[in-house]
Amino acid sequence: MDTPSIRSVLADGEVGARVTIEGWLRSARHSKGLSFLDVTDGSSMAGLQVVAPGELDNYDPEVRGLGTGAAVRVRGELVESPGKGQRVELRAQELEVVGDAADDYPLQKKRHSFEYLRTIAHLRPRTNTLAAVFRVRNVAARAIHRFFQERGFVWLHTPILTGADAEGAGELFEIEGGEAFFGRPTRLTVSGQLEAEIGALALRNVYAFGPTFRAENSNTSRHLAEFWMVEPEMAFCDLRGDTELAEAFLREVLTAILEECGEDMAFFDERIEKGVVASLEHIVKTPFEHMTYTEAVQRLEQSGEDFEHLVSWGADLQSEHERWLTETLVQKPLVVTDYPSAIKAFYMYANDDGRTVRAMDVLVPRIGEIVGGSQREHRHDVLAEKMKAQGLDLEEYGWYLELRRFGSVPHAGFGLGFERLVQFATGMANIRDVIPFPRVPGYAEF
Amino acid sequence: MDTPSIRSVLADGEVGARVTIEGWLRSARHSKGLSFLDVTDGSSMAGLQVVAPGELDNYDPEVRGLGTGAAVRVRGELVESPGKGQRVELRAQELEVVGDAADDYPLQKKRHSFEYLRTIAHLRPRTNTLAAVFRVRNVAARAIHRFFQERGFVWLHTPILTGADAEGAGELFEIEGGEAFFGRPTRLTVSGQLEAEIGALALRNVYAFGPTFRAENSNTSRHLAEFWMVEPEMAFCDLRGDTELAEAFLREVLTAILEECGEDMAFFDERIEKGVVASLEHIVKTPFEHMTYTEAVQRLEQSGEDFEHLVSWGADLQSEHERWLTETLVQKPLVVTDYPSAIKAFYMYANDDGRTVRAMDVLVPRIGEIVGGSQREHRHDVLAEKMKAQGLDLEEYGWYLELRRFGSVPHAGFGLGFERLVQFATGMANIRDVIPFPRVPGYAEF
Repeated sequence: MDTPSIRSVLADGEVGARVTIEGWLRSARHSKGLSFLDVTDGSSMAGLQVVAPGELDNYDPEVRGLGTGAAVRVRGELVESPGKGQRVELRAQELEVVGDAADDYPLQKKRHSFEYLRTIAHLRPRTNTLAAVFRVRNVAARAIHRFFQERGFVWLHTPILTGADAEGAGELFEIEGGEAFFGRPTRLTVSGQLEAEIGALALRNVYAFGPTFRAENSNTSRHLAEFWMVEPEMAFCDLRGDTELAEAFLREVLTAILEECGEDMAFFDERIEKGVVASLEHIVKTPFEHMTYTEAVQRLEQSGEDFEHLVSWGADLQSEHERWLTETLVQKPLVVTDYPSAIKAFYMYANDDGRTVRAMDVLVPRIGEIVGGSQREHRHDVLAEKMKAQGLDLEEYGWYLELRRFGSVPHAGFGLGFERLVQFATGMANIRDVIPFPRVPGYAEF
Repeated sequence: MDTPSIRSVLADGEVGARVTIEGWLRSARHSKGLSFLDVTDGSSMAGLQVVAPGELDNYDPEVRGLGTGAAVRVRGELVESPGKGQRVELRAQELEVVGDAADDYPLQKKRHSFEYLRTIAHLRPRTNTLAAVFRVRNVAARAIHRFFQERGFVWLHTPILTGADAEGAGELFEIEGGEAFFGRPTRLTVSGQLEAEIGALALRNVYAFGPTFRAENSNTSRHLAEFWMVEPEMAFCDLRGDTELAEAFLREVLTAILEECGEDMAFFDERIEKGVVASLEHIVKTPFEHMTYTEAVQRLEQSGEDFEHLVSWGADLQSEHERWLTETLVQKPLVVTDYPSAIKAFYMYANDDGRTVRAMDVLVPRIGEIVGGSQREHRHDVLAEKMKAQGLDLEEYGWYLELRRFGSVPHAGFGLGFERLVQFATGMANIRDVIPFPRVPGYAEF
C-alpha cells in the first residue's frame, strides 16, 4: 500500500529519484554479474525494468536464481533507460525476494492458449492479456457508474433471489428448498427490470448493475450462466428518450475506455483484434442511424443477400441480418425500433398500429445487437389485456399491474450485457475470457 | 429526461424563470379556486410547491380532483415562496395529469409503520423515509467506488455461483441440479474474499462489491439472506496497512454521506434516530483507538460491568462487550487486533505467539462491529498445516494453496456489510428497511 504503483513510476518517476517498488517477475534474464528483471504489479501493461547488479549482497545465488513469477521488493534509483519504449528503469540497490515461485509455475514467458488459461483461473489474471481485460473491465464499470451518477440516477440494488414469475425469460436456476425458506419457489434473477420500474416510479431515474443468470445449457463463446447486466429505467420517458440515453451511454463508456486504457487498447489492437481501436473510435464519433423494424425488413428483402435465415416481417432478426444492416447497409451503429409485438415481451408499449411495440435494439458492427430496450406499457388496461392474452397470472403480477393504477407514467429503459460490452471493446473472442470467474456448463470452480 | 429534476429547481431555479417539471403529488390541498400541490420526483426530500389557479382550463374537475400519488406535468413560472423553508414555488400555467392515482392508493399523507410498508415494497420507495434511505444508499455506494478507484483498486467481479467449499461460513443456498449443470454441487457465495485474493496476487489492489448470501433462518432486525458486501484485498500489505485502509475508508464514506446527503440526514436525525448526524461527525473527526484482543479482554474483566455473557480470553467478544469497549471505555471507534486463532478463520496469518492471528475488527458506537478483516496466511506450509488441523480438504483448496507457491506475498483485506453501514448511517432500526427488496425467511416476493 505504501509503495508507488509501477504504473505511476513509469508515468511520473523522475530520473535520479530513489524509489521502492513491489511486484512480480514477468521475466528474468541473468547474464554474468547482472540481472534484468521485468517487474509488474498488474497496474499497467508495461512492466518496470529492474537492473540488479552483481554487487547486491544477495545476488548469488538468490537474485541470480530468480525466475518468472517470483515476488520482489526493490529499492533503487531511477535511471534513464537505454531500452526502446521505456523512459526509465530501476537500478537496484536492495532487492528482497518476498516470495519465490516454484519451478512448476505454469506461466512461463510464452503464449498460452486461452483454453489452457481457463483451467488455471487462479493464475490467469497474471497474464498480460487477462490483466489488460480486467483493467478495461474496471474502467468500463467505472464509466458506467459515472455516466448514471452524473445524470442523477440512483443505483438500485435489485434482488438476486426472486420469487417472481419468470415472464418466460428462459431457463432458471432454482434454489434448493427455496419454498421452505422463502415461502415460494425461489430462483436467480434473469433481469432487474421489473424491480427497476418500481424504483423509477418513485425516484424517477434509476439503474440496476448487478449479476443475472441463465440456466441455458449453451456451450458457446457468447453465453455465460452468470453475467452482469446494466439496466437503467426512467420515468416520464418515452422510446425516443430511451434511445437518446442508450446512444449517449455507449458513446461515453467507449470514450472512457479509449481515453483511459490507451496502453491496453493498443495491445488488443495489435494482438487480439486488428482494428478494434478504429472501430470504437468510429462508433464514438458517428451519429447513430435510425430505422424501424419494418423498414429494416424491407431493406433486407431488397438486399439481394443470400441469408441463411429467411427474412420476413414478423420474424425476429438473426445475427446475420443485424450485422448486414449495421456493417454493410448503414456502416455505423443502427437503432432499430418498433418491432412486431408477437416477438417481444408483454411489458412493451403497444403502438397504435396494433401490431408493433415501442422496442429498440442498438446494433453495432462486429457483434450486432448490444443494447435492447423499450418503452414500457404504462396503461393499466392495455397491459392487463396483453398479460391475459399471453396466459400470465395476473395475481402473480398484481404488484406490477398496481404500479399502473397509482400515478402511472410513460417510462422506458434498456438492458446491456456487461460482458458483451467488454468483449466488444477488447475484441476478445470468447466471453469466458472477459469475466474473472466464468460460470458455464460443467464449470464453477472456486 | 428532458425536464429538470425538482432537486435542481429547488436549488438553482431563478425567480421569474419558466420551467416544466414532472413528478407525483405527495399531498394536495384544494381551497376555493386554488390548489396547492406538493410535488416530488424522488430527487430530494423537499418537494416543490405548485400553486394551481382556478383559471387553468382543466381546473374543474381535473386539477381540483387530484389526490396523493397522481402524476403531473406542470409548466409555469417560478415565484418567490411566502412559505417557510422554501425559496421558490411554481405558479402553474399548464397542468397535465399524466397518471391519476386510484382512490385506494395506500400511501396517504400519514405515518405508516415500517412493517406495513414492507408489505407494499413496490410502493414504499415513494415514502419520504424509504426514498431518503435509497438516496443515502446510492451516495454511500458511489463513495465506496470512488474511494477505491481513486486509489487504483480494480473492481473485481467475484462469482455468485460457486463450487468452492464453504470454509464453514454457515448455512448456504444450494442450486437445484447444480451438480448436473456445473459438474459439482453449486452454492451461492458467502464471500468474495478467496477469489479477491486471486485478484490481489495479480493486480495488487482489488475490491469486490456485490451480493452475498446466508441461508440462516434468522428472523431478526440485523440479518438478511441476501446482502451486499464490500471486500478490498491488497497484496504487499500487512495488518497495519489493512487497518489504515479501513479507517480511511469509513471516514471517507461517512464524510460523503454527511456532505452529499445533508437534507436526508437532517430528516433521519429528526425523525429516526436523534443524534445520528453528531455520531457520524464524531467518527469522521476522531482518530481511531487501537487495542489487542488480549488487552480488550483485560479491560472488560476489570470493568466491573455485569455482562450477560462471560468474558474470558479465548471466547469471542459479544455485542455487549464490543459496545462497552467503543461506547464506554474509549468513546470512539476502536480497532481490536490479534484475536485467538481458535475463534477465527483458517486463512488468517498466525502470529509468532502461537495462539493469536492477525485479525482486526473495527467497532463503532451504536452498533459494535462494522468491519472485520485480517492479514492472510501467505506461508504455504503454515497454511497447509492449519487447514489439515481444521479438517479441510487440501485438494479442494488446491488452487488456494497454490497461490502460496508462486510469488506469495503478505496480503490483507477486510469485509464490510453494506446494509449494516447504511443502517448505521441512517439510524434505521431494521435492516429490511435499508435494502430495496429484502430477502428474509418467508419473504422473497418480486
